[in-house]
Amino acid sequence: MSRFLKEQYRSMEAYTPGEQPRDMQYIKLNTNESPYPPAPSVVEAMNAEQVELLRLYSDPTAKNLKEKLAGLYGVRPENVFVSNGSDEVLNFAFMAFGGQGAVFPDISYGFYEVFAELYAINAEKIPLESDFSVDYRKYCGKNQLVVIANPNAPTGMTIPVWQIEEIVKSNPDAVVVIDEAYVDFGGETCLPLVKKYDNLLVTRTFSKSRCLAGGRLGYAFASPEIIADLEKIKYSTNPYNINRLTLLLGEKTVDAEDYYQEKCRKIEETRAWTTAQLEELGITVLPSKANFIFMKTDKMDGGELYKTLKAKGILVRHFTNPRICQFNRVTIGTKKQMETFIDTLKEVIL
Amino acid sequence: MSRFLKEQYRSMEAYTPGEQPRDMQYIKLNTNESPYPPAPSVVEAMNAEQVELLRLYSDPTAKNLKEKLAGLYGVRPENVFVSNGSDEVLNFAFMAFGGQGAVFPDISYGFYEVFAELYAINAEKIPLESDFSVDYRKYCGKNQLVVIANPNAPTGMTIPVWQIEEIVKSNPDAVVVIDEAYVDFGGETCLPLVKKYDNLLVTRTFSKSRCLAGGRLGYAFASPEIIADLEKIKYSTNPYNINRLTLLLGEKTVDAEDYYQEKCRKIEETRAWTTAQLEELGITVLPSKANFIFMKTDKMDGGELYKTLKAKGILVRHFTNPRICQFNRVTIGTKKQMETFIDTLKEVIL
Repeated sequence: MSRFLKEQYRSMEAYTPGEQPRDMQYIKLNTNESPYPPAPSVVEAMNAEQVELLRLYSDPTAKNLKEKLAGLYGVRPENVFVSNGSDEVLNFAFMAFGGQGAVFPDISYGFYEVFAELYAINAEKIPLESDFSVDYRKYCGKNQLVVIANPNAPTGMTIPVWQIEEIVKSNPDAVVVIDEAYVDFGGETCLPLVKKYDNLLVTRTFSKSRCLAGGRLGYAFASPEIIADLEKIKYSTNPYNINRLTLLLGEKTVDAEDYYQEKCRKIEETRAWTTAQLEELGITVLPSKANFIFMKTDKMDGGELYKTLKAKGILVRHFTNPRICQFNRVTIGTKKQMETFIDTLKEVIL
Repeated sequence: MSRFLKEQYRSMEAYTPGEQPRDMQYIKLNTNESPYPPAPSVVEAMNAEQVELLRLYSDPTAKNLKEKLAGLYGVRPENVFVSNGSDEVLNFAFMAFGGQGAVFPDISYGFYEVFAELYAINAEKIPLESDFSVDYRKYCGKNQLVVIANPNAPTGMTIPVWQIEEIVKSNPDAVVVIDEAYVDFGGETCLPLVKKYDNLLVTRTFSKSRCLAGGRLGYAFASPEIIADLEKIKYSTNPYNINRLTLLLGEKTVDAEDYYQEKCRKIEETRAWTTAQLEELGITVLPSKANFIFMKTDKMDGGELYKTLKAKGILVRHFTNPRICQFNRVTIGTKKQMETFIDTLKEVIL
């Protein structure tokens, strides 16, 4: 830390992303990436001419991509925001709409509390119920920025859309952010509510179901007024926020919807298989609608299991928060990867 | 604007980037892009395998690229920050180091005052001298964040490194940012001062001399403590800020230094030729060390000239600020583009 850093940031704790190891080859089940490559038509869209065009700036309005997304999801382009990963739109949302304080679950995407601290937002962390579910009534009538991941991370658990509607309806003077990063693996989107409520912001990402984590592309849906606010923040921080090639690959990705739907279904199947295997071993698995599962065994401490698996070449994600430190979050990889994971786990705990 | 937007942002004016027109093909001399493609070795580095790897996140530490940049510029990796364009590092610098206020020239990169407003930083805009030069003495002993582009934009004019050293030395309790986005076209870098002073932050970009505007890659040099602060801000906003492919292309770009040096020399030659042509026409051209020139003619109003050129298929950049509204900023393109520009200008004003 330098002696120049602004007082408010001195004690702040930054977000810790999952390990991106460089020391050896792991079966990497720790950052919820897709085990599948982008669609062939996306890969083919990249050629020397596109790389040469990198001498030119990207389109800061992302017009083509917004139109494609609007078409696919049945909204208007004015309802769409695109960003450098969904972390960016979440960042902007806390910045723009956190003025009256924020509420989110105690166990959720760890970045929410980092954003709150960054912008000196008074944050209330509402404990999940003992079964790790969200009691929607606790988020009603807050009239502060509400942020809920659905499915939640790292639990993978969902809340029904009718409960989201109650939250949105009961907080008419504040923005409700529903983070749908993991919605494509069997969750139910609340997107239709965007047409009905002007205070709902739904965030999404190409990093998980669209196999483009390294491309850095997120998007969001909301009323045109909320989108305009996000655009204003973008044009006041980094107007050319998205790589030119990524915009192109994003468009091609929207065009290849069938490919991605098929991969999502495959991940759901592998999740079901993995869950069944784990339960057969007496392991607790929370009911997941995401591309990961959250599991614990009473045969081994959570941190210990993480370390043991890592030593055996399998990387999963462990969190030290006392409420969930007995769990590990395991990304759903290919069937073959999950077979190796199950076999290794058996070696370790049986 | 929504009714939810935080009060402090409601009256804020966002930055207006140069036009990225979609209506017709222009000779595009308005956003200081390179007229040359990235080096062949950079273009060849992109292949299907790299696109497939986009399913994985990028390295948030950007270790390889930092090491390459450190090697090329003779500093340590701990002295290097990389960012999603240099706008991002400038944004972070205002956020992290603007607590005591900021000073910058009245005529400079228009984003500085947007950042100041965004973070509610008390900003003093020091007027350039009547010849558009910077009087360094006016920036000494401020002990506030000092931000100077060298070469300056949109003038293209430079200030000597010994004057920068005086500014840095006389502001020991504040960070001095020297924005070297345009330094590679004949300017002199102040990078050697980074080893001597812990309060100097030098920002750079791959967008101009490295032909990667659409790749979104900036970098910066400073003391390890300042770099650590910037990393902290990055890990609190968007840890995976840079595209995976861009990191790779950035590394390949550093390896192809000779190619880019040659292109920079070519642009300097074309700049000299263009300047001579303009002066022959009696047009005022400020002495530029950047990849653009700033020019005015008493034969036509600046805004009028911009519009007339646009109608004839040549896009340049015009600013409405009264002090410079008679000028136009013209990016140096290929020799052929500049010949067309000169011919068109002759048609228009002779």
